[in-house]
Amino acid sequence: MNLPNHFELLATDGAARTGRLTTPHGLVRTPAFMPVGTAGAMKGMHWREVRDAGADIVLGNTYHLMLRPGAERIAGLGGLQRFTGWGGPMLTDSGGFQVMSLSELRKVTEKAVTFRSHIDGTKVELSPERSIEVQRLLGSDIAMQMDECVRLPAERADIERAMQLSLRWAERSKRAFEAAPDGYMLFGIVQGGDVPDLRRASARGLTDIGFHGYAIGGLAVGEPQAVMLAMIEETAPALPVDRPRYLMGVGTPEDILEAVARGVDMFDCVMPTRNGRHGMAFTRFGQINLRNARHVDDPRPLDEESPWPAANGYSRAYLHHLVRSGETLGAMLLSEINVVYYQQLMQGIRDAVANGTFEDFRTKTRAGWARGDIAPR
Amino acid sequence: MNLPNHFELLATDGAARTGRLTTPHGLVRTPAFMPVGTAGAMKGMHWREVRDAGADIVLGNTYHLMLRPGAERIAGLGGLQRFTGWGGPMLTDSGGFQVMSLSELRKVTEKAVTFRSHIDGTKVELSPERSIEVQRLLGSDIAMQMDECVRLPAERADIERAMQLSLRWAERSKRAFEAAPDGYMLFGIVQGGDVPDLRRASARGLTDIGFHGYAIGGLAVGEPQAVMLAMIEETAPALPVDRPRYLMGVGTPEDILEAVARGVDMFDCVMPTRNGRHGMAFTRFGQINLRNARHVDDPRPLDEESPWPAANGYSRAYLHHLVRSGETLGAMLLSEINVVYYQQLMQGIRDAVANGTFEDFRTKTRAGWARGDIAPR
Ligand SMILES: [Zn+2]
Ligand SMILES: [Zn+2]
Repeated sequence: MNLPNHFELLATDGAARTGRLTTPHGLVRTPAFMPVGTAGAMKGMHWREVRDAGADIVLGNTYHLMLRPGAERIAGLGGLQRFTGWGGPMLTDSGGFQVMSLSELRKVTEKAVTFRSHIDGTKVELSPERSIEVQRLLGSDIAMQMDECVRLPAERADIERAMQLSLRWAERSKRAFEAAPDGYMLFGIVQGGDVPDLRRASARGLTDIGFHGYAIGGLAVGEPQAVMLAMIEETAPALPVDRPRYLMGVGTPEDILEAVARGVDMFDCVMPTRNGRHGMAFTRFGQINLRNARHVDDPRPLDEESPWPAANGYSRAYLHHLVRSGETLGAMLLSEINVVYYQQLMQGIRDAVANGTFEDFRTKTRAGWARGDIAPR
Repeated sequence: MNLPNHFELLATDGAARTGRLTTPHGLVRTPAFMPVGTAGAMKGMHWREVRDAGADIVLGNTYHLMLRPGAERIAGLGGLQRFTGWGGPMLTDSGGFQVMSLSELRKVTEKAVTFRSHIDGTKVELSPERSIEVQRLLGSDIAMQMDECVRLPAERADIERAMQLSLRWAERSKRAFEAAPDGYMLFGIVQGGDVPDLRRASARGLTDIGFHGYAIGGLAVGEPQAVMLAMIEETAPALPVDRPRYLMGVGTPEDILEAVARGVDMFDCVMPTRNGRHGMAFTRFGQINLRNARHVDDPRPLDEESPWPAANGYSRAYLHHLVRSGETLGAMLLSEINVVYYQQLMQGIRDAVANGTFEDFRTKTRAGWARGDIAPR
């Protein structure tokens, strides 16, 4: 059954695309990068700063939110967008991935995953149907099907079993989502590890079921970048051209640029905020480690051409001092700097695709990263 | 020797005063509360938020800054106001108090305090002269003399010895400060513990030496509030009426209101940000512990009449969730809420003194605190 389409493809340049996704809480310009607000908050940033940085949409983690404060509670408080004050579009994952990585005593059956909460030890069952129910209670603009993701490297048989299970869970997720009001979206997730024909079979199976959009899952889980890009090349052409494509949990600026070049529209990653907390800044000249002693007396800003006060208004010496002293402000400023850099990158990509200059943008952007940081004084 | 006066007394109401202090980096409206940015940063807040909250001046800790990043380094980077990006007036303490509370193997002689850095174990000597030199390198608008502060309760003999030593250090501090350009200020510090005649003797001694302003030190160090207020009553009248009076390290909103009623002009305390990090909010209705389970489903903001988005724009349920989840944003929002509340209190005090309605303001403010938090739903 074909679901209504809320995605508008505005331009393509090679395999790269730019478009617009309409959600109940606002428009999302694609290619889009979604900063991750795990438990209903962006670490070290105010929501207004996330918005000002240029983010149209953020990601929330179903696993964390269902355990605390609880999906029914958030529904009672008006949904995740209102509860957090973010107000804009939100995508939630299914919770399945984090059950696997964070909880204890988990058991996967055809029916559901059972696990113990990492917060209070409570035994919880998460089925594809319950995952959709939770995401509907959260009020997610975009819900994800529950899937099983296999860490690479893995045997073909294991990858295939998880992919087939994910397809059956995809069908159940779609049925559970039928009651959702128009405008809210459900994405299926392509699995198949690093095996090209399994990737294609998964994409075909999901397309037959029919979703508002399609995610590419099970990548950025330990494989080399070349494998990830090869799998995108297998998968993207097998997906409907008129629907958004979301590469889950990716990645570095370079990963994103290369995935856009292969037809991906949406991304999410904790990297901008997590690396910010560890003293790393993403810039036009690659990553800069502010903990490094060479910054200790450097009065220059990180990037004097950045329009963002955190990137142009503080000296490297001050940022270095904040990082070394463990001051919260250091994590706050570097998280902001990184979220802004990611959003500027996405804006650059969108403009380039719209103007038919994506290849030029890609070459120049890669050259900037390769050039590295400005020379010490 | 009389130093130039940069303080203008605008109005009095009973013993309460309102005025204006002119510093090289801007005006300070008094009574003033100085949020504490220990190591060159306000924990959990951007400098623009501190400014927007209504703070005219902030405090930096000499002990921390001299050890990291170092006073000479900050001087090379343009001084503390420029280094941090705060830009406005800054007062620094002498470093002596934190040597006593934070460092190891300290030794106090007539000449200086010797100690080991809590950061890297380096042996450091801090004399009254070096303290002034460090504060001049930092570029502090207001420097404090080095003093010795005795924790209460203590024997009269110990209190007297420390008070007399502090007076001799006051003289040396003043001599060391002579080269400072006009506009920069040095405050002497009244000691004398909880002994009225020692307090008066200290105030007289300092007034004879002559400072730009006078601090009341050695209070809020464990004694009951009544003792603190009694000591202010002994000390304030013994200080020159035309100079600013600063009560160090104080305190709760009630401490501040009562000290203003006894003639104090300036305050500093870590309480707004520290308590914010621990889930406590200061409001018109007293302190509210957001960790308390009664907030878990409460959609109401902390104070819907507050003009500040953090206080009126988020539900108690969300703040509770952030505190319980240990999210940085919880500490950020509550620090802001508290710094704003303190500044609103100071603005209310200044207006009331200017209008001759301080007693009315004091009664109503105390009644609000006594009323307590709004009833649960
Ligand atoms: Zn920020
Ligand atoms: Zn803030």
